[in-house]
Amino acid sequence: MCRWMAYSGNAVPLETLLFQARNNLIDQSMSSRSAETPTNGDGFGVGWYGKREQPGLFRSIRPAWNDFNLRDLAAQIDSRLFLAHVRATSLATVQETNCHPFRHGKWLFVHNGELFGIEKMRRDLLLAIDAPLLEEILGTTDSELMFHLALTFGLESDPLGALARMAGFVERTGRDHGVEESLWMTVGVSDGESTWAVRYASDGQAPTLYHSRDMADLAQLNPDLPDLLGDHARAIVSEPIGKFAQMWSEVPQATALHVNGARLELLPFVPES
Amino acid sequence: MCRWMAYSGNAVPLETLLFQARNNLIDQSMSSRSAETPTNGDGFGVGWYGKREQPGLFRSIRPAWNDFNLRDLAAQIDSRLFLAHVRATSLATVQETNCHPFRHGKWLFVHNGELFGIEKMRRDLLLAIDAPLLEEILGTTDSELMFHLALTFGLESDPLGALARMAGFVERTGRDHGVEESLWMTVGVSDGESTWAVRYASDGQAPTLYHSRDMADLAQLNPDLPDLLGDHARAIVSEPIGKFAQMWSEVPQATALHVNGARLELLPFVPES
Amino acid sequence: MCRWMAYSGNAVPLETLLFQARNNLIDQSMSSRSAETPTNGDGFGVGWYGKREQPGLFRSIRPAWNDFNLRDLAAQIDSRLFLAHVRATSLATVQETNCHPFRHGKWLFVHNGELFGIEKMRRDLLLAIDAPLLEEILGTTDSELMFHLALTFGLESDPLGALARMAGFVERTGRDHGVEESLWMTVGVSDGESTWAVRYASDGQAPTLYHSRDMADLAQLNPDLPDLLGDHARAIVSEPIGKFAQMWSEVPQATALHVNGARLELLPFVPES
Amino acid sequence: MCRWMAYSGNAVPLETLLFQARNNLIDQSMSSRSAETPTNGDGFGVGWYGKREQPGLFRSIRPAWNDFNLRDLAAQIDSRLFLAHVRATSLATVQETNCHPFRHGKWLFVHNGELFGIEKMRRDLLLAIDAPLLEEILGTTDSELMFHLALTFGLESDPLGALARMAGFVERTGRDHGVEESLWMTVGVSDGESTWAVRYASDGQAPTLYHSRDMADLAQLNPDLPDLLGDHARAIVSEPIGKFAQMWSEVPQATALHVNGARLELLPFVPES
Repeated sequence: MCRWMAYSGNAVPLETLLFQARNNLIDQSMSSRSAETPTNGDGFGVGWYGKREQPGLFRSIRPAWNDFNLRDLAAQIDSRLFLAHVRATSLATVQETNCHPFRHGKWLFVHNGELFGIEKMRRDLLLAIDAPLLEEILGTTDSELMFHLALTFGLESDPLGALARMAGFVERTGRDHGVEESLWMTVGVSDGESTWAVRYASDGQAPTLYHSRDMADLAQLNPDLPDLLGDHARAIVSEPIGKFAQMWSEVPQATALHVNGARLELLPFVPES
Repeated sequence: MCRWMAYSGNAVPLETLLFQARNNLIDQSMSSRSAETPTNGDGFGVGWYGKREQPGLFRSIRPAWNDFNLRDLAAQIDSRLFLAHVRATSLATVQETNCHPFRHGKWLFVHNGELFGIEKMRRDLLLAIDAPLLEEILGTTDSELMFHLALTFGLESDPLGALARMAGFVERTGRDHGVEESLWMTVGVSDGESTWAVRYASDGQAPTLYHSRDMADLAQLNPDLPDLLGDHARAIVSEPIGKFAQMWSEVPQATALHVNGARLELLPFVPES
Repeated sequence: MCRWMAYSGNAVPLETLLFQARNNLIDQSMSSRSAETPTNGDGFGVGWYGKREQPGLFRSIRPAWNDFNLRDLAAQIDSRLFLAHVRATSLATVQETNCHPFRHGKWLFVHNGELFGIEKMRRDLLLAIDAPLLEEILGTTDSELMFHLALTFGLESDPLGALARMAGFVERTGRDHGVEESLWMTVGVSDGESTWAVRYASDGQAPTLYHSRDMADLAQLNPDLPDLLGDHARAIVSEPIGKFAQMWSEVPQATALHVNGARLELLPFVPES
Repeated sequence: MCRWMAYSGNAVPLETLLFQARNNLIDQSMSSRSAETPTNGDGFGVGWYGKREQPGLFRSIRPAWNDFNLRDLAAQIDSRLFLAHVRATSLATVQETNCHPFRHGKWLFVHNGELFGIEKMRRDLLLAIDAPLLEEILGTTDSELMFHLALTFGLESDPLGALARMAGFVERTGRDHGVEESLWMTVGVSDGESTWAVRYASDGQAPTLYHSRDMADLAQLNPDLPDLLGDHARAIVSEPIGKFAQMWSEVPQATALHVNGARLELLPFVPES
């Protein structure tokens, strides 16, 4: 079980939300409440949109809470849209290339959850990925495969459609190998303008996903961050933040989210079979 | 708050106690119960006595639970006496040279606790360390200073006496700078033959320290490790292990422990003023 | 261009050959002469056979010359057969799982060279690997693919036959994608009893490979290591060692080597088409 | 022997000079010509001035040429003044806190060279450092001591005077311990507005230091970087860059350099005894 967040709004130093906000993602990485594993200490990553079209990416296998460089960068770098992720894995491979976000051109991708039966499906999933995209795969996570499948299925022109085709393909492949309910996910995707997020699981029990209702929420959590984030700021988080859970809106099961500026849209998410 | 353990007995693969035993140190590093900070993910170290007089040392800033190399080494390396340590620090500097054990010649040293007011005392403590020993200091922990002070005060010929002189010196130095109760520690020391441990705090509230009563204890905890450890095996641990706390003997406050083969001796510990 | 060595003989501390011998592998990693890239600073690995059937494995992305833990382990660990490797890559992905040796059960594998056109062949190579073996692939090197292909083709029962089938398969796959001369390699393989090595390239220009002629060679290089290694000791190295090149026997192109105890056999190597 | 550079001029992505310029610092780190040790693979650091008063700092023990995060950050971060450093050490301790630049408030410091006899002087140097500054020392380099001595001696109000006092103090301390010629250095210091550099050695044989003559130099080296750097850009480098040595002005022995905007001033440097 991992944790992730996406922010869009006024350009702020990354540290504003990663370190300074109460119940921030870094603090959470040390002692989570809802997550199944108690500690998200198996790596960290942040992808941010700055002045270039391609987002920056900083990933490390150190626990986020003790990485000097992360603290420094978070203080120096301003961004109007970023995705951050802390990782906990029960599997052995902790390496930077398994840390989220994953990046392709201007696109970023984060995932929380699991592909059940990945050991039966990996070959078929690899096979379905476009050859040039296959060369970009550097790690061994199911998440990176999901991202590259979605890219193969048209993520760059139709994000939610491609995610639906990816989900459908994964579920079919699972069933072909006797895995009835293979997909368990929340994902976040951005091109630097919009952010899309999906909460979906084959068995209807996907991990949680929340979005901020409006800026009054974040302001209540952090009265010290008054007008900093701006009126159009939005945050999407994988888990309720501490005791303030009631201040976030839970995204229902099988639902997609589209955030663009102040606009936030909820849509049903149905894997394309 | 850190955690540590010392083992002596039959030569066993390190993994026997580090990974395979129930409630082992590595599992504990992810979710501790009694320790003040919830996660000991800020580095790990193990020092072991093998075929050379000088013990081996493996230290890493990765969390112990996700370090490949540690798992492999623990499976390959047999030792009849070793000290292991998992670190949690509220301070920023996570680097290998701040990981325990510290080593000097054939001596190993681990520490759990803190020197209160270290920022006022550091200069005086550094000054009291023999010049050649000063050159061996590679990190910035209070623990490494304590070890090198004890070495300066004769650890190699009189371990408990030197620890008492170190403790007395630290407390005096603290008081000179207005810190009435500066020392809070459990420490473990070995020369490859004996292991010494001390539980002591200036305010009488040192962190916990336990020793195994006899091998029946460890066998009960791990019926699958029957005669492996031998009749003379002894374990010293910084904290009660899970629900089996009643199977360990708590070392009283202000007490030193000396383990040599099957012999275990408890002695009062009084800083030498 | 990487560098590697294999040793078999009396059990000696790893440091004897890795650090103490003149012109040792670690020194070479800083300033190579024949290798195309000047520095092998992109990771290191050593696999050694000790008391367990499965060999130990220590891999690190730090340059071998500045890794504390490696020095310490090399001083503590004795082995009668080990493979070591220093890496230089022009490609970006420096991670532990891309460091050699690779391991499967009791088998170790090292590689120097390259698969030309890997970006065209990767999918077909992945497809040819047995599904359970596919799950063991953790990195992104061509070398790891070669090893798992050879395992698929029977390495464990017929090492040289499987390497020939692997080589033939790679060359056919290359030609299918318009790469006429795809294979360029020296490889080393061991099961803890025998060591096999192959020097082969599709264009007949494989990187160099040398074996020690007899122990007099090593003794001349290192008069200080007299009887330590034993009469049956053998070393295989990817490159001539410094000015002592004349003391090593060059393995001809398209040749396999089989070392078992004192026996050393040279065989023609022909990819199985 | 390390290498370093300082840049001031138009705000440019760090990668412009670190990766894209011909004979850039990163390429040099793999194969140096004039430096005594062939490879600067023992860590890297860059400190840059951006939007905050405090400069950012990114330091890593990975070789600069294979650090993903560095490449990414260098592409994203623009700076009008930065210092970069690649490290080669014959001593064992490779850790982030020993990587340059060192930072105090808005000040950055880099050093190439050595304090001869540091093992005799360390205690006296530590003693001379103001207590609050002593708490900021996180590593074990002579360089960090030099910086904190200079800070103690007034670097923030009188940079060149404080460096002269530091140099004089080091030389006196050396002589007190029988080291006649203890200091061998080039250093670079900045507060974000000005950059100061000094070339000095007790024996008159300090390592080299160069400054760009005017922008025509850099433009000749890199015709592809036309007006990017601006008319007032200045670079200071520890070593002549490849075959273009004649395009740089060598800073004479015992000389200080002050760069502020387009102004470049050369001054004699005399340790204050």
